[in-house]
Amino acid sequence: MSAAVVSLERTFHALGDPTRLGMVERLSRGPASVTELAAPLTMALPSVLKHLKVLEEGGVVRSEKAGRVRTYRLQPDALAAIDRWVAQRRDAWNACFDRLDRMLAEEDEES
Amino acid sequence: MSAAVVSLERTFHALGDPTRLGMVERLSRGPASVTELAAPLTMALPSVLKHLKVLEEGGVVRSEKAGRVRTYRLQPDALAAIDRWVAQRRDAWNACFDRLDRMLAEEDEES
Repeated sequence: MSAAVVSLERTFHALGDPTRLGMVERLSRGPASVTELAAPLTMALPSVLKHLKVLEEGGVVRSEKAGRVRTYRLQPDALAAIDRWVAQRRDAWNACFDRLDRMLAEEDEES
Repeated sequence: MSAAVVSLERTFHALGDPTRLGMVERLSRGPASVTELAAPLTMALPSVLKHLKVLEEGGVVRSEKAGRVRTYRLQPDALAAIDRWVAQRRDAWNACFDRLDRMLAEEDEES
């Protein structure tokens, strides 16, 4: 699943959990197998796989299977999508302040 | 609650829902009352308030009560925190590629 077709709330949902955020921290240092990702965790393998599935559905990671080993890596597109969203929200927010500034300036001129 | 003491997974969790993401879109155009935020939605008021609570706990919005009207506004600190996190992940990711590049260059020199 490409990050382009993943809705942003799924990406945010994927990141909205300490375990999954920890997995992303780990993967931002390089690709890792399921075994490597599970190693620091105290949960059962099915739970680990469930978290990885949510991350993959959110477009945050992708995985490839070679032989019996499935390797996960970060999907930089997801970071780019979050970046764009934050920038857009900030632009809208700044535009709102600009309108307020203009209104106050006009009030000053009138008084 | 200031965004500085809110953990990032709570911020991401707050944004990981289409209704809440819609509320943030609305608030990025300026502050709004509960009534205004509820207007485009087809859900009951308690559900609206629950979503707003999650957004507030995630440090994404803050609210102020004046008389009987509670007004919500975006908390830009949350956007800044997400920005920093994305930048850090990207730096780690790039550092990983740099290491790979160096390794490949060294292999080239050896061969």
